Amino acid sequence: MKAEVICTGTELLCGEIVDTNSPYLAEQLRLLGIDLFQITLVGDDPERLHAVLQRSLERVDLVIAVGGLGPTEDDITREAIAQAIGEKMCVDPDLEEWIRGVFKRLGREMPAENIKQAMLIPSAHPIPNPRGTAPGWWVKKGGKTLLALPGPPRELQRMWEKEVLPEFRSHLPGEVIFSRTIKTWGLSESRVDELVSPLFFSPNPTLGIYAKPDGIWVRIIARAAAKETAKEIIRSVEAEISSILKDHIWGFDTDSLEGIVMVLLEEKKLSLATVEVGFGGLLASFLSPSPQFKGGLTLNPQQAGTMFIPNIGSHIQHEFLSVEAALDFGEAAIRYFGTNLSLGVVGAAVDTGEKRAGTICIGVVGRGRKRTASGIYPPYQLKERAAFAALFELRRFLCELS
Amino acid sequence: MKAEVICTGTELLCGEIVDTNSPYLAEQLRLLGIDLFQITLVGDDPERLHAVLQRSLERVDLVIAVGGLGPTEDDITREAIAQAIGEKMCVDPDLEEWIRGVFKRLGREMPAENIKQAMLIPSAHPIPNPRGTAPGWWVKKGGKTLLALPGPPRELQRMWEKEVLPEFRSHLPGEVIFSRTIKTWGLSESRVDELVSPLFFSPNPTLGIYAKPDGIWVRIIARAAAKETAKEIIRSVEAEISSILKDHIWGFDTDSLEGIVMVLLEEKKLSLATVEVGFGGLLASFLSPSPQFKGGLTLNPQQAGTMFIPNIGSHIQHEFLSVEAALDFGEAAIRYFGTNLSLGVVGAAVDTGEKRAGTICIGVVGRGRKRTASGIYPPYQLKERAAFAALFELRRFLCELS
Repeated sequence: MKAEVICTGTELLCGEIVDTNSPYLAEQLRLLGIDLFQITLVGDDPERLHAVLQRSLERVDLVIAVGGLGPTEDDITREAIAQAIGEKMCVDPDLEEWIRGVFKRLGREMPAENIKQAMLIPSAHPIPNPRGTAPGWWVKKGGKTLLALPGPPRELQRMWEKEVLPEFRSHLPGEVIFSRTIKTWGLSESRVDELVSPLFFSPNPTLGIYAKPDGIWVRIIARAAAKETAKEIIRSVEAEISSILKDHIWGFDTDSLEGIVMVLLEEKKLSLATVEVGFGGLLASFLSPSPQFKGGLTLNPQQAGTMFIPNIGSHIQHEFLSVEAALDFGEAAIRYFGTNLSLGVVGAAVDTGEKRAGTICIGVVGRGRKRTASGIYPPYQLKERAAFAALFELRRFLCELS
Repeated sequence: MKAEVICTGTELLCGEIVDTNSPYLAEQLRLLGIDLFQITLVGDDPERLHAVLQRSLERVDLVIAVGGLGPTEDDITREAIAQAIGEKMCVDPDLEEWIRGVFKRLGREMPAENIKQAMLIPSAHPIPNPRGTAPGWWVKKGGKTLLALPGPPRELQRMWEKEVLPEFRSHLPGEVIFSRTIKTWGLSESRVDELVSPLFFSPNPTLGIYAKPDGIWVRIIARAAAKETAKEIIRSVEAEISSILKDHIWGFDTDSLEGIVMVLLEEKKLSLATVEVGFGGLLASFLSPSPQFKGGLTLNPQQAGTMFIPNIGSHIQHEFLSVEAALDFGEAAIRYFGTNLSLGVVGAAVDTGEKRAGTICIGVVGRGRKRTASGIYPPYQLKERAAFAALFELRRFLCELS
């Protein structure tokens, strides 16, 4: 099956907003095994939209039109579809009642213009939208399917997940698709590619490798006639990848590094403090939702350069930009916040003469153990990369604690 | 002048990456007064790309093709343009020398496949790319202009700003466009709209209102035959807007709130500490590049709920979620870090029983003065909004210090 996505809205052509709906739909279609042929962004111009719809309907089996379902004059998607399909719109009494009900529950009269949203054509059935007043349209005609979905991502995603996806899943010709994402830290994208690509010699399963702020992700996508077969295909490849990437793997699918660390701290009933020297408080910001996180210190490198944490008197014994200094800062933080563990990171946002800008040193300490690491990241990514590098080391430390 | 943007790359149709190049170009074209007609995202398929290019060249005067200029087999933009224009490509000796030089400086031989990037057609001249190995193409033929720009945003934006924009500016037919962005905090988007829209009764200047994490931005765009006239149009509207939005205005154009605060601290030779209780260390992360920022404390609300900052003994005298507590925390931070000023923020990421989730209280203190504020933000935006609200109050405090 081939598809096209058409997003309407003059704001998309003014650079005022970034379109996140089509990447979302692109990924969803991919997981369904539907080929996405083209994405087109057009303004709120009836003639243009009509021309784009017409051409897409000639080329593919499934056309998804996003946006333009509001009540105002600018909202022209319904009219353009009716014209492209060659049918007349009229008000659907059930839809009208539903929209009036939405306004009633808000304690308001339905504005006259909202009656537009109750319109249908004979080949369309409405798709419920509990997060707004614009129902979607599901049009089937002449072997083609056309979906009209609302533009606000919260409404579109809910409609896709609850209404469209189950219907597609139940009608796709006897094929299921499963995916599994393996998340790693500490290897380059090309190194991961080199290591895992040889496992993907056949068209099924397929492999995707993505560079993200929290490391390199490896995605396996498997197709099969039955659910269990698809899962089994993934299971065997995943086992092979795990035996290759080993300790670089920190999580799967929707896992986040900070989420995993928070769960481990809770399970092991450990409290944590952080010290960040030289590049800001992103680590404290990531960890702050956890009750196990007692607090964090962010220090200016000039301040830290005096070699002690003020008012604590814990003399930092080592060169400022070293893993030993990271451990010293961390031990001071344990005493200061009264925690079991600490995570200390020192970084150089600019060249220090001895060390290159982007250098970071990490120290995890507590419960009689310690773990250190260091790395160099592009200075413009330093804050984020340093925070993820530190979380990765903390996770390893926690996993190794009995 | 009418334009279309075509972005190539199969990854765009898989949902793997969000296209930020076309919103960037859309805004740039808008500021040049060029109408953007359509944005199309296509895969790395020679036939499809050729068809899309051909149709765009029939419809508009300016076609911008993004991506597909790399050295691999997937990079097909040059071939597709040559085909659409009906010309043959051959290696340009100057380009080849330049690319070999890039690799030489990296201490490597040029891989054989990179010779593709030295190709040109007779109607194209190359656009320099100091951030990569892919030169752009500037094609002029039969009254049409076609630009091919590299996909990586760092390369594309540099090429646009330094090479394309000056050329366009010097050739646009006797019309200049200037824009001015006024940045505000503390008013809703609809309130700003209500206040400033009445000033925009004619088609020139035009008004744009945008909701951003750091507040509401008002953009004025003026067109005129001469530079001075356009600037004068903006100057008079800006003066009117300033007299309406007054103290809500914190900056202009490329200003950032943290940047303004850092400049003020430096000018007034004041040092600063921060305390963030209950929602993480984003403020410390924003301010950490400043040498005036000595350090920040991030505290868990449970910890802070014991009503004193550990090891300091400064008893917080007031209810935890209050501006008085924010001031108390701030005074403790001044003593702890030895600074002139402090910025304290307490926030509730979840409902506290007494206060709603998303409530924040801000206190700025030092030099014998203080300033307080409070607000409520959607909990999912709390971290970012709380940091900007606090920076806004700090800016006001600094502006009022003599």
